[in-house]
Amino acid sequence: MRYSQAFLFTAKETPSDAEVISHQLMLRGGYIKKTAAGIYSYLPLAWRVLRKIENIIREEMTREGAEELMMPAALPAELWMESGRWQKYGPELLRFQDRHGRDFCIGPTHEEAITDIVRHAVSSYRHLPKNLYQIQTKFRDEIRPRFGLMRGREFIMKDGYSFDVDDEASATTYEKMYRAYSSIFRRCGLSFKAVEADSGQIGGSFSHEFMVLANSGEDGIASCSKCSYAANLEKAFNGNTYQCTPRGSTTGERVSTPGLSSMEQLSEFFGLPAAALVKSVAFMDEEGTLCLGFVRGDREVNQVKLERLSGKALHAADGEALAKAGVVAGYMGPINLPADTRYWLDPSLRSLDEIICGAGEADFHLRGLSPAVLDEKRFADISTVIEGDCCPRCHSELNILRGIEVGHVFRLGTVYSQSMKATYLDRNGKEQPMVMGCYGIGVGRTAAAAIEQNHDDKGIIWPMSIAPYQVVICTVNPSRDEQSRATADSLYERLAATCDVLYDDRDERPGVKFIDSELIGIPLRLTISQKTLEQSSVEITIRKSGEKYLHPLETISEEVARLIQQQMEACL
Amino acid sequence: MRYSQAFLFTAKETPSDAEVISHQLMLRGGYIKKTAAGIYSYLPLAWRVLRKIENIIREEMTREGAEELMMPAALPAELWMESGRWQKYGPELLRFQDRHGRDFCIGPTHEEAITDIVRHAVSSYRHLPKNLYQIQTKFRDEIRPRFGLMRGREFIMKDGYSFDVDDEASATTYEKMYRAYSSIFRRCGLSFKAVEADSGQIGGSFSHEFMVLANSGEDGIASCSKCSYAANLEKAFNGNTYQCTPRGSTTGERVSTPGLSSMEQLSEFFGLPAAALVKSVAFMDEEGTLCLGFVRGDREVNQVKLERLSGKALHAADGEALAKAGVVAGYMGPINLPADTRYWLDPSLRSLDEIICGAGEADFHLRGLSPAVLDEKRFADISTVIEGDCCPRCHSELNILRGIEVGHVFRLGTVYSQSMKATYLDRNGKEQPMVMGCYGIGVGRTAAAAIEQNHDDKGIIWPMSIAPYQVVICTVNPSRDEQSRATADSLYERLAATCDVLYDDRDERPGVKFIDSELIGIPLRLTISQKTLEQSSVEITIRKSGEKYLHPLETISEEVARLIQQQMEACL
Repeated sequence: MRYSQAFLFTAKETPSDAEVISHQLMLRGGYIKKTAAGIYSYLPLAWRVLRKIENIIREEMTREGAEELMMPAALPAELWMESGRWQKYGPELLRFQDRHGRDFCIGPTHEEAITDIVRHAVSSYRHLPKNLYQIQTKFRDEIRPRFGLMRGREFIMKDGYSFDVDDEASATTYEKMYRAYSSIFRRCGLSFKAVEADSGQIGGSFSHEFMVLANSGEDGIASCSKCSYAANLEKAFNGNTYQCTPRGSTTGERVSTPGLSSMEQLSEFFGLPAAALVKSVAFMDEEGTLCLGFVRGDREVNQVKLERLSGKALHAADGEALAKAGVVAGYMGPINLPADTRYWLDPSLRSLDEIICGAGEADFHLRGLSPAVLDEKRFADISTVIEGDCCPRCHSELNILRGIEVGHVFRLGTVYSQSMKATYLDRNGKEQPMVMGCYGIGVGRTAAAAIEQNHDDKGIIWPMSIAPYQVVICTVNPSRDEQSRATADSLYERLAATCDVLYDDRDERPGVKFIDSELIGIPLRLTISQKTLEQSSVEITIRKSGEKYLHPLETISEEVARLIQQQMEACL
Repeated sequence: MRYSQAFLFTAKETPSDAEVISHQLMLRGGYIKKTAAGIYSYLPLAWRVLRKIENIIREEMTREGAEELMMPAALPAELWMESGRWQKYGPELLRFQDRHGRDFCIGPTHEEAITDIVRHAVSSYRHLPKNLYQIQTKFRDEIRPRFGLMRGREFIMKDGYSFDVDDEASATTYEKMYRAYSSIFRRCGLSFKAVEADSGQIGGSFSHEFMVLANSGEDGIASCSKCSYAANLEKAFNGNTYQCTPRGSTTGERVSTPGLSSMEQLSEFFGLPAAALVKSVAFMDEEGTLCLGFVRGDREVNQVKLERLSGKALHAADGEALAKAGVVAGYMGPINLPADTRYWLDPSLRSLDEIICGAGEADFHLRGLSPAVLDEKRFADISTVIEGDCCPRCHSELNILRGIEVGHVFRLGTVYSQSMKATYLDRNGKEQPMVMGCYGIGVGRTAAAAIEQNHDDKGIIWPMSIAPYQVVICTVNPSRDEQSRATADSLYERLAATCDVLYDDRDERPGVKFIDSELIGIPLRLTISQKTLEQSSVEITIRKSGEKYLHPLETISEEVARLIQQQMEACL
């Protein structure tokens, strides 16, 4: 494409409402344009990137036997009522009535739609397995869309769904999809980790998130320094088996601590580090029933782990709930709790030889309490893993990384096939629910994550496989240097036959062209000027390394092909 | 793809609610599944066809310099208010409010969105021309969706928009798009005609529809038997310059015709063919003002032509409007009309030597009236062209064909750029509105039209270029004939590397496999059986011609490649 003909307009200033670097660079580089909050147009440059990602997805999904289809965006309410999600889904679901007053939604996900298709077609075990996917524009009315393509309201997603005869077959399909996803993100040139994830409230049995590693990532990941264990911080386990030499008494010593309830105040008062104290946090469920968590003072209670243990959604307890349960706010401890109080103790408490905690009465703490008084049955891993914790598999040290979730594979089990009656007849003629899996990739988010991971202060550094253009040809002075222009013209024609070339034929200063090509992030730049032509050469600049060298014009096509190949292989 | 693994389920029965053959065959062939009225899932088979059509579109659009982008489906009301369409567009527009109560619509077309993008980027004549397109799922809430993909509510459309400095440049872009569209439909293997079309109420200056010729087509086309003239019947002109030898008097003779007002009754009463009488039709506009049309009795008044002449939308006049204007229903004629009556006379009336028409008073007609009394200023082409009329260009005979509109190219002028202030500075630094064009293709409809044009009583006959699979391999008895199975397995592996192969490896009777492959419409079938292998051969069946022959197994790949090539070239 000739720059002069392309729809390509870069900007100097960073828009004030763009917080993250990918959003800033996509706006400045002329990749996207905001149409409304969380709703963007993908301009030709972004669309080239997205289509490359889509094609990689298609190739890898096909390789693992999945078939592409396209389901409607508009889905009738009846389908969503069958699964029960019409009622459960919040205001993120875009609902509308058609001109005849029938209820519809714009599907933010398509479990119901695909289950409806499959249940009408598949009737026998001989028809299974089936694995179907689509790449589709979705709408989810996020209350606070932000970060550009990272968390938009309208977004492009690859969503796939598998149907198997049983758990074992479903696990095999899951492995295939795990493999496909690994290949997809590797081929996109991304440094990523597949991490064990919490299955959340969808109730599935098992899931992995694919995380692109980037300091700006919203998600924390615990990753073993030795083995392959990696998990979302919401779910990561601490393999430390704490040991102590119990001291102290079964009753401890009452200490007056009026007005002292923060960890900081207590640490100062007792002259001990937080790690020697007990931290207590109170949650409650929808019905107002308490759920307390006690961890060592230097650690945090992990709400998701507590929710999994109690099987309910939780939020911070209010004074009313505490009072009703007879628990004294600010002075509760893992002993002296009213009977029937639901609470959990983190294993980190085992590292304490003696315990200092709230006394269960206002303005008093206990110290010198023996850990032997703690109820063994209440111990469970409820704290969030921190740097240096133990891997639950190999007991090596865990590192904490930041990541951006770009994909999610999920064993759904029979949640939807049971509610929607998607059954088949097995070998014995018995009706069985199909066992499902679902698999998602945020296409736009993958592009954004690639930028978060690959940029410098000049702009984007695209991995070769998903760069909008692989090569940019810059002329230094096209209007006055006829020879350079003619050489560039013919080089462009030659290269365009074998790779994606942007030809910056604009009558602009070379500085402007260089700044634009670096901002846009094109991996290879070929500069042609009187000076390079005096040596029958072209100057090659490699965006990633900054490396620059002259190469003979005669074999420039081969050199470009070699560099592209080299950078493509670096992704594999 | 192996049939046993594919999501491919054909049906024997034709669904009762499918009226047209493309809809029937797509349902029976397992191409689509209805999710709601006018809303379909494209199953893998249909999706393969649609993606092939999309890729042909992309290649031809790129060839003519257009760039692909993707605009949001959800568009804010503000944009549509700027163009005035928020108010004007009817209930076909899906409107919704987001969770913050802001008005949006799902864009059924994107003139506003693209104009907004371009006006913010383009500021100078140096930035023009720009030509952008997208391939997107649209929603239009049709009151009576029908005919499957032919007239759905949710549908896939390629919509493109061009921006030029002036009319001349815009005309050049229009020609490019006309050329691209011609290539696209030719490459899709379709027999089509580009016809001049009415610009309708969008107010554009010029447009062509691309019509796939098929007897089931909803649109009529007048096509010259000699020259290239072709036009939609709504717009086609009749080039006949009628001549007569005037007879009769200026007053005519009053004849009592009580109760006779239909053409049939009058024809019988006067003992003359309808072609010797005058037919009158009364319309009225929104305000109830009459607009009358008079044509020769054997012809029809063309409402669209009348609307263009009067510059207003029209519908059938009611008794009240007629009475108010003092026009006698059933007895009006092209003379004796109240002053100020708006009416038009079709040139076909000139062929009458003397005129028989309503007398303008109840229960009376006039006969023996001289055509000289007709007001010359009122003549205009207002009748619908019929078979045998004259080409307006070369005066040869016009033929009437039926077609399905699959594409539309349109010179928009400055309608949107003026209302939305999409301007640029010209060479003299003067602000000018950009001159726009818009270009649409119904992607799903193109697939449906291909079926309407290419089918027989066994099923679909896909053009090679858009067939979901180019070749199907059938084994006759895979479970008992190991040699055939092994040969088919290896042939499948070999062919899959170079073309789209469906391998029907099911343990089904050959009859079932043949019926399915014919229904689905795969262009080439290779049958492998003990019998063919005895002659070291494979049986080739060509779907289109029904031709069958044995070909040596050794060179079957070459033969398949040759047949594919041959059928692909037949489209060019």
